[in-house]
Order: sequence, then structure tokens, then C-alpha cells
Amino acid sequence: MTAEPLMQPEFEYCFELRCRVEDPVPLGGREPGEGLHFARVSGGTFDGPLLRGTVLDGGGDWWDARGLTVKLDARYVIGAEVSDGAAGVEVVNRGVWRTDPETYERMLAGEPVDERELYYRTAFRFRTGHPELEWLTASQFIGYARAEPGFVVIRVFRLI
Amino acid sequence: MTAEPLMQPEFEYCFELRCRVEDPVPLGGREPGEGLHFARVSGGTFDGPLLRGTVLDGGGDWWDARGLTVKLDARYVIGAEVSDGAAGVEVVNRGVWRTDPETYERMLAGEPVDERELYYRTAFRFRTGHPELEWLTASQFIGYARAEPGFVVIRVFRLI
Amino acid sequence: MTAEPLMQPEFEYCFELRCRVEDPVPLGGREPGEGLHFARVSGGTFDGPLLRGTVLDGGGDWWDARGLTVKLDARYVIGAEVSDGAAGVEVVNRGVWRTDPETYERMLAGEPVDERELYYRTAFRFRTGHPELEWLTASQFIGYARAEPGFVVIRVFRLI
Amino acid sequence: MTAEPLMQPEFEYCFELRCRVEDPVPLGGREPGEGLHFARVSGGTFDGPLLRGTVLDGGGDWWDARGLTVKLDARYVIGAEVSDGAAGVEVVNRGVWRTDPETYERMLAGEPVDERELYYRTAFRFRTGHPELEWLTASQFIGYARAEPGFVVIRVFRLI
Repeated sequence: MTAEPLMQPEFEYCFELRCRVEDPVPLGGREPGEGLHFARVSGGTFDGPLLRGTVLDGGGDWWDARGLTVKLDARYVIGAEVSDGAAGVEVVNRGVWRTDPETYERMLAGEPVDERELYYRTAFRFRTGHPELEWLTASQFIGYARAEPGFVVIRVFRLI
Repeated sequence: MTAEPLMQPEFEYCFELRCRVEDPVPLGGREPGEGLHFARVSGGTFDGPLLRGTVLDGGGDWWDARGLTVKLDARYVIGAEVSDGAAGVEVVNRGVWRTDPETYERMLAGEPVDERELYYRTAFRFRTGHPELEWLTASQFIGYARAEPGFVVIRVFRLI
Repeated sequence: MTAEPLMQPEFEYCFELRCRVEDPVPLGGREPGEGLHFARVSGGTFDGPLLRGTVLDGGGDWWDARGLTVKLDARYVIGAEVSDGAAGVEVVNRGVWRTDPETYERMLAGEPVDERELYYRTAFRFRTGHPELEWLTASQFIGYARAEPGFVVIRVFRLI
Repeated sequence: MTAEPLMQPEFEYCFELRCRVEDPVPLGGREPGEGLHFARVSGGTFDGPLLRGTVLDGGGDWWDARGLTVKLDARYVIGAEVSDGAAGVEVVNRGVWRTDPETYERMLAGEPVDERELYYRTAFRFRTGHPELEWLTASQFIGYARAEPGFVVIRVFRLI
């Protein structure tokens, strides 16, 4: 045991990703919306106090649904602004999306839903060799996401 | 945009894992402590307000070091107390361990180091089919860890 | 021990994938061509005695190079012809690409190189829930690939 | 198209792994034998024309069953004989195990079954930094396995 009291988790806001996501392709589940799907990430931007840049076309989100609980496994690439131009960074983002029937109806009707109505929390891993971006590979990051029509919007926080 | 202000990340403390970890086996790095290693998880216990049980023998932590920054990728199994006995749960725990030379010296000398001195933060994914443990698969969890000689001790928090 | 003599590995040819692959994005390696890259898969077709269809736009190949030895980790989606239309199938294809400086020069000059000159061997895992495609998920598959300008062409074999 | 005719897959026998595997722990499936399980790898040996050594205690096989078709995902560590002693090598072995009810009955009765009766085919990925073992990381390997009581026995072949 340590003499110091243990920490409460603390976090630092880094940037917000706005990923354009195409319509999902079902990967063979028997009922609509059930089972594994692929949704291509086709572009976007990100911005915030610690980093900004663009989301590249390619990669996607492989998501697996059981009713209104969905496991996310997204993998795509962003181009981050650095002093000598833009540097590629792999984004691996896994997590959980979960909602209730009423909120889901509103989403299907094209309404945005906020972070309290939709449980959409993730953990990030970044990979890049650019020396200015080493901090992205040396901490654990989490995401709080919300859905807007055609986009996933995720705020990225660093665990302190 | 939503009318509601965005959330600050919030956390709920769930339980603390005490994993017994055997001496690491280097997987061929050229310098001691560098590169990929395997450390077997050989037992332990966990306890807390939301769950308790034992850590099973098997699995381990595949960790990859570059200097004093280490990527963790642990995978093992716990037995959780449920109303009809114990249920197996797969634990996948990935994250970052990072320290400074001075703290590292103290660790090598067998001293415990606390959560502020050692950046040891992780993200969990649990897999189990037991109906009482569905909550473990329907949220994102993070870990704050500390090292004690022969053990890794990780507090597990649920993102709210 | 079994009385029967052991098998020699045997293979059944299934289909050939022609994936259009976009120019790779470096993910921060310090030298050109070294380290992690992302190459988007943007389309294509596949055909053969057991299956045919299209390669969807999205996903890609995350490849990691050390000199002229490259680890491949591709993940994309194909649409396979089935009796009621097309069914989505996730393709995970991991393997090794390895060549010598002379062959590499010829590839850079835009010449095709064949399966003997370029060691480009992979192992596949397919995921789909479509009942007609269950066979894709119930065997181990391997790939023999060759490079054509702008395309990766992979013959897929089932281990018998 | 290349002028050369395409290759038939060819392979080179490397070594045979004999892994001791402990009784599987179910990870919550509702019916016995269904769903995800963990089976600890607790030791063993390997031998053959290209490599020999021991299987270390730790890691295991996370296998997922639907009826008599099982997806394997094993991850453990071996110690390979090299000129300066033993070198650790990570083994990742994924594949498919599939049988029919009659063969399964014989396995439950403790009888060995051979490679023709049990479809048990895998693909390997090895990771090690030891310079003498670079060949393990520079080719694609496949496995033909058979079950003996308490052991999995896998012959490892290199794709040529």
C-alpha cells in the first residue's frame, strides 16, 4: 500500500474529431441492424487545443450490434498539422454505443442526440512515428462521442 | 450542435484487480528491457463495490518497451462471483506505462511507487456471456494502475 | 500417436481478388518507405470457381516495413454474389511481403512481378453471417499475391 | 498478367509443437461447450528439422464455439534453441477446428483423432527480435493440428 491517497481519474481535453461516416454495409446478420457491419470513414476534420488536421478517406468502423448495444471497432487515419506539414496518424478506436428505443427512434428520424442520451464512450490508441506527435503514443486517451446525421463527432481526452 | 452543454467525463469506481505477474520473458530485443516481453499472469484476486472474485492462472501481459515508455497488451481471465457460483470473464487490458529514470530506479530496488509517480493508465474490454455480468460488456472501462513487487494493482472505473 | 500417416498440406483454389489500392500514406516513419503505412482499398472485383463479386471502397492495408520485409495487416469488405443478391463479407488478411533490391527496382519502374519473384503470402479470416457463405468462416484460407500497378491480386486457397 | 504460370502453393515442414493445454474455462456461454472459452497453455516442447525448444507456461487459447465449429485464437510463448542459449518467441495461432458428432464422441471418450478426421488448420504469426530467428518473422506459416488427451499437437509448415 502507498501512503499517498489514490488518484481520482483526471483528464485533459485534446481535440474533437468530426468523421464523415458512410451508410453501413451489413455483414450477413439475419435481422436488419443485428450483427457485424462496416461503415466506411470517408473524410472529416479535427480541431482543438492540442491538435488539428483532417480525417483521411479510408478505413472504417466495424461495429457489432446486439439489440441497442453496439461494440465499436474503428480504424482509420488522420493527417495532423505539424511544423513541417502534415503527419499521418493511425487511429484505433474501440468502445460501446448504447441507447434506448425512444432515443433510437429520434436518431432514425435524423435528429441529433447528445452525449447524455446516447452512451457512446470509447478508448483510443494512436500510432505514429512523427517526433512531434510522440505524446499521442505515450498516454491513454478516451472519447465521448455523439451522432449527427452523416457524422460521428468524438471529443478526445487524455487520461492524466 | 446540441443545445445541452457537453459532458465532462465522469467515472464510477468498480473494483480493484490484484494480478500476480511472473518475471518477464524477453522476446528477442537486443538490449535488456527493450522490445517485446511476455509476463505471465499466474493468479490474484479482485474486490470492490461492484464485483469480486479471483484472477485465474494463464494469459499474461505482452508488453513492448522503448526506453521508459511501455505499451501494454494484457489478456487473461478472471472468475467473478455471481449468484450461481463463479463466472469466467475475459479481460483485455491495453494501455501505457511510463516513468522517469529516478522512479524506475526505486521500482528496481523493490519499492512500491504510486499512481502519481508512474503513468500507468489503461482501457479495458471484458467479454463474458453470463447474464448477471452484461454490464461489464456494455460500458467502456479504464484502469489506474500501480506496481507492487510481484503484482500489478489496477483500479477499474466505468466511464459514465 | 495415430496409426494413419500424417497429411501433406493440400489446397483448394477458391477465387482471385483484384483489389485497387491507393498510394500509401506514411504514418510517421523517419525514412521513406520505413515503418507503418496505410494504403486505402478503394474497389475491385473477385472471381473464381467458388465465389465472385466486388471489393467495396473502404478499409485498407496497414503495412509495416523494415527494409524490404513488410508485415501486412489488411482489413476491408467484399460483396459476394449469393442467391438473393450480394452479401457483405469482412476480409482480414495478414501476411508477409518480401523481395530483393533488384525486383524492387522493377516494381518501382511499374513492371509487374510474379509470385516467384515477390514473396507475398498471407492468411485470411472471413466474417459473415450469410448462411450460403458459412464455408468462408469454417476453414482456414491462405493467399498467394502478386503486385500489378495500382492493384494487389491475390489468389485465395482453402486448406483442406 | 504475368507470362509465367502461377504457382501451386508449396510448403516446407519446420517443426511440431506439443502444447500441454489445461481444461477450458467457459466465459459465460449459456450452454456447455458453446461460446467463448479460455484454455491455458501450461508447457510442452517442440522439435523438427528447423527448430526445437520448449513451450513456456502462460498464455492460452481463447476459443469460440458454435456447435462443432470452433474459432481458435491462441497466444503463448516458446523458448527456441539458438547458438547462445534460448530465445523467447511469441506465437499467435488463429484458425478453425471443426468435426462431426461421431468423431467428437470419440474425442470425449479420450481417443486420439487424426488430421483427416478433425479439421484443425491454423495460420501462425511469430514475433521475436533474435537475429537467428528472423526467418520466423519473414514468412507465412500454417499449421495442421491433431488432438491428443491433454495436448494439442501442431505441425508447422512454411509457405514457400
